[in-house]
Amino acid sequence: MVETIQWTDDGVVMIDQTRLPREEVYVTCRTYEEVAGAIRRMVIRGAPAIGVAAAMGVALGVARAGDGEINGSFETICRTLAGTRPTAVNLFWAIERMRRVYAGVQGRPAAEIRDRLIREAVEIYHEDIAINRAIGRHGAALVPDGGIVLTHCNAGALATAGYGTALGVIRAAVEAGKQVAVYADETRPFLQGARLTVWELEQDGIPATLITDNMAGHFLRSGRIACVVVGADRIAANGDTANKIGTYSVAVLAKENAIPFYVAAPVSTLDLSLATGDAIPIEQRAAEEVTHVYGVPVAPEGARVENPAFDVTPARYVTAIVTERGVAHPPYEESLRRMVG
Amino acid sequence: MVETIQWTDDGVVMIDQTRLPREEVYVTCRTYEEVAGAIRRMVIRGAPAIGVAAAMGVALGVARAGDGEINGSFETICRTLAGTRPTAVNLFWAIERMRRVYAGVQGRPAAEIRDRLIREAVEIYHEDIAINRAIGRHGAALVPDGGIVLTHCNAGALATAGYGTALGVIRAAVEAGKQVAVYADETRPFLQGARLTVWELEQDGIPATLITDNMAGHFLRSGRIACVVVGADRIAANGDTANKIGTYSVAVLAKENAIPFYVAAPVSTLDLSLATGDAIPIEQRAAEEVTHVYGVPVAPEGARVENPAFDVTPARYVTAIVTERGVAHPPYEESLRRMVG
Repeated sequence: MVETIQWTDDGVVMIDQTRLPREEVYVTCRTYEEVAGAIRRMVIRGAPAIGVAAAMGVALGVARAGDGEINGSFETICRTLAGTRPTAVNLFWAIERMRRVYAGVQGRPAAEIRDRLIREAVEIYHEDIAINRAIGRHGAALVPDGGIVLTHCNAGALATAGYGTALGVIRAAVEAGKQVAVYADETRPFLQGARLTVWELEQDGIPATLITDNMAGHFLRSGRIACVVVGADRIAANGDTANKIGTYSVAVLAKENAIPFYVAAPVSTLDLSLATGDAIPIEQRAAEEVTHVYGVPVAPEGARVENPAFDVTPARYVTAIVTERGVAHPPYEESLRRMVG
Repeated sequence: MVETIQWTDDGVVMIDQTRLPREEVYVTCRTYEEVAGAIRRMVIRGAPAIGVAAAMGVALGVARAGDGEINGSFETICRTLAGTRPTAVNLFWAIERMRRVYAGVQGRPAAEIRDRLIREAVEIYHEDIAINRAIGRHGAALVPDGGIVLTHCNAGALATAGYGTALGVIRAAVEAGKQVAVYADETRPFLQGARLTVWELEQDGIPATLITDNMAGHFLRSGRIACVVVGADRIAANGDTANKIGTYSVAVLAKENAIPFYVAAPVSTLDLSLATGDAIPIEQRAAEEVTHVYGVPVAPEGARVENPAFDVTPARYVTAIVTERGVAHPPYEESLRRMVG
């Protein structure tokens, strides 16, 4: 299994997801600013994975600070990492957790502070894998034996510390002995489906078929798809779900064709401070992601572009939300509160 | 205005749509086999345009045949051109029209046969532009002043002999003095929206914003889009509409958000011999269109791919069908029969 991210003595090592599947290249971030840059450039992406990366970034920033600089630089480190991407709440959750740990050791010897923060970041990493396995166990029952699962973007090992959320559900179903095949939306503009999901599933020997995003409706209507499973970047208290752009379309098309639409995400993706998804900030990314593919222009030069990286799927399209604590059903106001409580 | 296709003494000249917008290159097809190849490779595409190309291909085949070969080769010429692409009915309509003309002059001197067939092909070309202008006049009233129109694929001048069907409606609205802006789906895998629609609209000074296909739902939900206008490749008697893959998804998402969804197409796109869209043949194209962009791989080597080039939008999602003879409303069984009758 590929290693998405790892803490090492040299720094934070990540597989460069901008270069997969053509090249398997690992980059080492030696400063917290490099971790922030890697998150921003999507060298690492996926809500749980950027949570882990941010935690390791905080630990790295403190590890590299001089003994007398830790206290003065801690907030700058946290703010820099928090400023990388606005939508996935796991980023803020992880930084908040590091802040709480820091508050508990503030004033202690520098070596102890460093140790404690590194331990916490590595613990978040290990917890994430365990959480994904639990999500998989709870979700596996939802995937019918012999069925085809459609997924959007990459909510796999590469989007997490390992195993994956949506792909974790699929992996767990396969481990439970079910025959499962996957239809993967290519997920323009960044092509996480084509580049990452298909690649990941191939490594595990799970049959994957690549389609363009605009084919999902056609196949959902065809009767071939048993269910949809996707990840999430932020889930509001009412179940409205922000996820990769195009998720809303898939959800509407699933509902129109009476196909279950499942969201798989850790409890850290829940943001119960937001009543609905309307308040979730949607990141706008650079036009070049749309106008160019691997540097090759696919549109007239200077074309006007919109590039929202996420959309919000209203809760009424979501059949169930699978977390590490179980499967939440509507009404989500109650079921999600129980998950957190 | 760009010339999509032209009859010349040298042969059939087409702008190479596989190379737009990076290069404006014209290719000259000197044999009917070259015309067939150009249709197959999508050097020319769009239902009305391939109808014109097929008619010119038949004329070219006969023009290049020896005096004594015309009768023996006519059916081969027709069958070769008919075998290029299965979905757009305009192709078969145009060849059928050429067959009828040939039947009327069969046995006459070769020069007369050649003249008559060339005249018919050129007439189909000129008729198509006039038809599109009439579609535009009928459709312009449907586009609200100050509104944003979302379109999928390219149903523009490049998809026709000129002016366009869906884009003809937009052009006519602009010519009528309305302020109209366009959101163009990029339309994977062949990128007709990004490469052709945005380019065409820029030439006319009509504001166009490029989005990826999976953003259409997000913007239809946003309240910014006034209506959707698309072309068609074949329309069954009940109004079920085959068009570029992804059209079905846009139609469902438009209906879900109470946004009118219009189809603009000439009467030659109607296939009243088919009761519903279920019988429309859907072309499957090569995997490489999905796995490669301009030759650059965007998926793991050997990835399994589905690549249906079209989908069928059930009539219940279609608000109205705009033809050169007026605007057809549901129930389409009656309104479309009146259009043809």
